[in-house]
Amino acid sequence: GFPGNPGLKGAQGESALLYHSSFSVGLTDPVPATNVPIRFNKFFHNEQHHYNDVSGKFHCLLPGVYFFTYHLTVYTKDARVSLFKNDKPVMFTYDQYHEGNVDQASGALILRLQSGDEVWLQIYGDEDFGGVYADNTNDSTFSGFLLYPDMG
Amino acid sequence: GFPGNPGLKGAQGESALLYHSSFSVGLTDPVPATNVPIRFNKFFHNEQHHYNDVSGKFHCLLPGVYFFTYHLTVYTKDARVSLFKNDKPVMFTYDQYHEGNVDQASGALILRLQSGDEVWLQIYGDEDFGGVYADNTNDSTFSGFLLYPDMG
Amino acid sequence: GFPGNPGLKGAQGESALLYHSSFSVGLTDPVPATNVPIRFNKFFHNEQHHYNDVSGKFHCLLPGVYFFTYHLTVYTKDARVSLFKNDKPVMFTYDQYHEGNVDQASGALILRLQSGDEVWLQIYGDEDFGGVYADNTNDSTFSGFLLYPDMG
Ligand SMILES: [Ca+2]
Ligand SMILES: [Ca+2]
Ligand SMILES: [Ca+2]
Repeated sequence: GFPGNPGLKGAQGESALLYHSSFSVGLTDPVPATNVPIRFNKFFHNEQHHYNDVSGKFHCLLPGVYFFTYHLTVYTKDARVSLFKNDKPVMFTYDQYHEGNVDQASGALILRLQSGDEVWLQIYGDEDFGGVYADNTNDSTFSGFLLYPDMG
Repeated sequence: GFPGNPGLKGAQGESALLYHSSFSVGLTDPVPATNVPIRFNKFFHNEQHHYNDVSGKFHCLLPGVYFFTYHLTVYTKDARVSLFKNDKPVMFTYDQYHEGNVDQASGALILRLQSGDEVWLQIYGDEDFGGVYADNTNDSTFSGFLLYPDMG
Repeated sequence: GFPGNPGLKGAQGESALLYHSSFSVGLTDPVPATNVPIRFNKFFHNEQHHYNDVSGKFHCLLPGVYFFTYHLTVYTKDARVSLFKNDKPVMFTYDQYHEGNVDQASGALILRLQSGDEVWLQIYGDEDFGGVYADNTNDSTFSGFLLYPDMG
C-alpha cells in the first residue's frame, strides 16, 4: 500500500509567552507621605494589574526572576527612596537637592520572587527626605517585569 | 496487500525564540535641535534596524509589550526630554544644569505597541532645554526591546 | 493495500525557558581603585554565578543579546565610569560632584555577546574621577540579563 500521511505538526515550543507580568506606573503629584509605600497613580502599562494601585505594591503571582527599575525627579528637597521586598528595604537611592538644580535619581534591581511576594518603593526617613516630585511635565516612574518564569 | 509505511514525522513546533526586536543607540555630539526627534547616530546594537537612523524613531514591526530606557548627559544647560509615541509625548524627564556640575538624567517605560507604532525621544521646549550632551567620553543613549510579543 | 499509519507528531518547538543568565550586584563600600574592574561584593541575584566576584567581570556562557544597566551614587568627588567589553571601553558615564549635592548617575546598554566575552565597569581616569560611593543606605549597582539567546 501507499505510505501514510505525514504526522501532525509538533506542539508549539514552550514559550515564555504564556507568562506575562509587567507594569509601568508614574505619579501625577509629588509624594506626600514618608515611610509608607509610594502609591503610583498614573498608569502607562498595567494590563495584568499586578501593580496594586490601592496598596502601592507590586504583587507577585508568577514565581520567577524579575527586573525592577525606577526613575525619580528630585525637587524641593533631598530624596531617599528604598525598594522594599516584603517589609524589608533591599536597596537605597539617595540624591541631594540644591536650590534651582532639579536632579534625576534612578535604580534597578533583579530579584527572584515567590508567589505572594510584594515589592514597592517608599521614602526612607522623615519628610526631609521626601523630595520625589512629579507634575504634568515631570515624571517619576516605577516599572517592572517578569524576566524568567519558574518552570512548575 | 500490506499497509504502506508510516507517514513522515510532523514539523517541529514554532519556537518561542523567533521574536526579536532590540536596539541600543547613542550620540557622537550634543543634540542641536529641539522639538524634533533626536537622531541617535552611534549604534551599539540595531541588528533588526527597527531603530531608524534617518527619522530618529523606533518603528514597531512586531506587536507586543516593549521596554524603553534612556540615559542622558546634562551639560551646558538644562535638559527636558520627552518620550513620544506617535506624535504624543508620553513621559517627561527634566534635569537642571549648574555651572561645573554635569549631571545624568534617565527614564524607563513599558508600553504596548501595535505594528506601525513609533517611539522616539525629543527635546521638549525651546533651546534653553536642549542640554543633552555627548562626546567621545560622555554618552547619551536610548535603548529598547520587545519584552512579550503578541501571539498571532 | 491500505495506506500506512500517519507519521509521528513533530517535536515540540524550542523553549525559550531554558536559557537563563542574570545578575544584580552592588557595593558595600566606595570604590577604592581606578582603571581596574569594579569588584561588586553585594549580591542581590547571581544564581548562575555568571558575574564573577573575584574578577569583577560578567562572563558570558550563553551567546546572545544582553541588557546591562548600572546606577551609581556620586559622592565626595566626580565619577567617570566606563562599561568595558573585552578590554575595550564601550560606553562612558560622567557626573560631577558639588559639595553637599550627592547625585545619581546611570547607564544602560544592549550588546550581542559571544561565549567567553566579558563585560564589566571601571573608573575611567585617575582618582579624581573615582567618586562611586556606597554604604549601608546608599547603593551603587550593576545588573544584566540575557534578553535573546542565540539559536545553536
Ligand atoms: Ca541637576
Ligand atoms: Ca552632578
Ligand atoms: Ca543631587
